[in-house]
Amino acid sequence: MDIRQRPVAFLGGTGPEGRGLALRYALAGQEVLIGSRDAARAAQAAERVRAKARGAKVTGVANSEAARLGESVFLVVPYEAQRSLLEEVGAHLVGKLVVSVVSPVVFEGGRPRTIAVEEGSAAQQAQRLLPESQVVAAFHHVSASDLWATERRLEGDVLVCASDSDAKARTMELVRLVVALRPVDAGGLENARYVEELTALLIELNRLHRAHTSVRILGV
Amino acid sequence: MDIRQRPVAFLGGTGPEGRGLALRYALAGQEVLIGSRDAARAAQAAERVRAKARGAKVTGVANSEAARLGESVFLVVPYEAQRSLLEEVGAHLVGKLVVSVVSPVVFEGGRPRTIAVEEGSAAQQAQRLLPESQVVAAFHHVSASDLWATERRLEGDVLVCASDSDAKARTMELVRLVVALRPVDAGGLENARYVEELTALLIELNRLHRAHTSVRILGV
Repeated sequence: MDIRQRPVAFLGGTGPEGRGLALRYALAGQEVLIGSRDAARAAQAAERVRAKARGAKVTGVANSEAARLGESVFLVVPYEAQRSLLEEVGAHLVGKLVVSVVSPVVFEGGRPRTIAVEEGSAAQQAQRLLPESQVVAAFHHVSASDLWATERRLEGDVLVCASDSDAKARTMELVRLVVALRPVDAGGLENARYVEELTALLIELNRLHRAHTSVRILGV
Repeated sequence: MDIRQRPVAFLGGTGPEGRGLALRYALAGQEVLIGSRDAARAAQAAERVRAKARGAKVTGVANSEAARLGESVFLVVPYEAQRSLLEEVGAHLVGKLVVSVVSPVVFEGGRPRTIAVEEGSAAQQAQRLLPESQVVAAFHHVSASDLWATERRLEGDVLVCASDSDAKARTMELVRLVVALRPVDAGGLENARYVEELTALLIELNRLHRAHTSVRILGV
């Protein structure tokens, strides 16, 4: 089946990153589900996306419903919310591609700080909690505001870490659907820690330079 | 005094990264000191650099001598060797700019792994061991082989972390001496951990793609 015909779900998708990704996938012709703990908030977020992507099929539902209906499922929750989310909806994710956009970053006085994850990374924690899903780490460094500003050309690379080669290939295809982004194979899921740590650096650079930074890997 | 008239020392500078940086600074007209535990090895490395940079003033000496004579001092030792090096030569570094290129990366079966540093990063450890020096973290992501291949145009950004603003400004000036490299202010020394972690990711990308990767920050 063509990947474009599969609904893509964004769990915890009402924040800026989730909405931005949902918008770009809607514009790429993808059926999109926005999930939230609160179905009413999800419906509002879906409404905002539809307002920018006329005619697109974007629906806001509870996280469990988005997990059940999504064929590819993005995790865009804050790290602290990941465990309870996955314990709640994990049964719906068996056999599915789960794309983790989560970084274990907390904010203290407006500054980011990465926190140690027993499994090594947020993505590896998700994989442990979802042993029958194919977890991939990707999309951490795409600026939410750039995703939302559709008049702006997206720049930068998407580092993709996955231990399952089919899941990695499908995710790289999903990256290419978002115009102008390049997927870069960053190895197995054990490398997700480096990719997640890089998020904190970019957040710091954004703060220092009042910018929306992203990253390009030169030489590949 | 013009920064170019100050000798630049590379402690532990006989490896590929040290030699590569020494070469580029020699070509930029800088007086260069290459330090090693073994003065004879340092002299050999200096000879190799001079062979590629005719007429340049490049001298190989013991680390302690390089530390004593250098006005700006680069640390290019493996992380495991940093502590004993700094305990040995620290007295010569008082009041000086110390540029840490060190990442706390070890190799296991050919693959990199970052190790936890009590102080947060290798650069912060260096600052703790050198309380009267101005430690700056920079140059971690410049490919050693690209530095050595002078026919190749260097690409990429140099992330610079420093808590002392004068030391940061001097380091950024040092970066600009290496043609085509752009310094990017990456905040205080507490951010060095993110910059050092990124080294491991680039080493992994080099391994996966058989490439010499570097990084560019977009949006600044």
